[in-house]
Amino acid sequence: MDVAGVLCGRPAARALEEIARFHGAPAPGVVIGAVMVDWARELIGPEVEADAIAETERCLPDAVQLFTPCTLGNGWLRVLDWDRFALTLYDRFDRRGVRVWLDAGKTSGYPAIHDWFLKRLPKHALPLDTLLNSIFEAGRAVLSARPVHVNALLRRSKKEAVGICPGCGEAFDPRAGDLCKGCLNGGYFTWG
Amino acid sequence: MDVAGVLCGRPAARALEEIARFHGAPAPGVVIGAVMVDWARELIGPEVEADAIAETERCLPDAVQLFTPCTLGNGWLRVLDWDRFALTLYDRFDRRGVRVWLDAGKTSGYPAIHDWFLKRLPKHALPLDTLLNSIFEAGRAVLSARPVHVNALLRRSKKEAVGICPGCGEAFDPRAGDLCKGCLNGGYFTWG
Repeated sequence: MDVAGVLCGRPAARALEEIARFHGAPAPGVVIGAVMVDWARELIGPEVEADAIAETERCLPDAVQLFTPCTLGNGWLRVLDWDRFALTLYDRFDRRGVRVWLDAGKTSGYPAIHDWFLKRLPKHALPLDTLLNSIFEAGRAVLSARPVHVNALLRRSKKEAVGICPGCGEAFDPRAGDLCKGCLNGGYFTWG
Repeated sequence: MDVAGVLCGRPAARALEEIARFHGAPAPGVVIGAVMVDWARELIGPEVEADAIAETERCLPDAVQLFTPCTLGNGWLRVLDWDRFALTLYDRFDRRGVRVWLDAGKTSGYPAIHDWFLKRLPKHALPLDTLLNSIFEAGRAVLSARPVHVNALLRRSKKEAVGICPGCGEAFDPRAGDLCKGCLNGGYFTWG
């Protein structure tokens, strides 16, 4: 595989290793995600401290978490379950930023990426090495980018007060209501 | 600060460094999260390949992502916005696992943790070193753990087919409906 060059400020081969270590494998979605982060970072400029939004839970959040200071736990990354392979980096002060997405129309020149992205072939018919080579060959040619202005919709609220939920006895955010969201929503577990 | 000992299979001081590098700072919530992961991992046993659930978006997901193979992007970690400081590690095959939570009742013997967790003092009145010392001193004494059986509620669906959204022209999961979730929900941005 030809992984010469620089990706997200380190040798591309090292970026691949970091992806494999964190994500469990050098998954194509995270590798393309790294190319997207790399471009978005360049477009927004080095002077901007950027927050991030990922429009899918699949793969992309890991590229953001590895190659920007934004993580889910520190609140600088917000993740939407919209299943669009797109991310936005934006200035948290003036909320101007750039959205980068994997552009289905542009993938047609790269059959491996096209078939993978649009699920035209079963997974076993697409060898990982072929796909990764195609991703490194394509680089930004399969992406689109455009400036955006982010609205306040996704801002995470600050934790203000803490109460004890009368349902489960655990600490919770009283803005949820009389009970915590776990008790309100019904649990994902039963005690075993 | 006394950070002797072992945490999540590495020297505690190294775990702290990893937290600071990934999260941006050795935030108390991620450090307690590491102690929770450490205990949950021990309780579930080394032979179990575990999936993870975090019941808050704040801090805790980063401890899971750093100290288990589960990340948001690989789908082995699911994150709920319930604002409960609790996590579950469970066997993805029989869905039996263990839930560990920071137990408000048990924090009373550790004033720094108590005041931080229940927001009894403003942030500037709680020096980070004092808080981290208290966390290392307390260890598992401020946590509770109990076996659970996880239901199928949170299982992430596999991507099956990909369509092109007639609204935005981007690739999407057609199970969303006639349009992608971005077009259906209204966007978080305007083109700039």
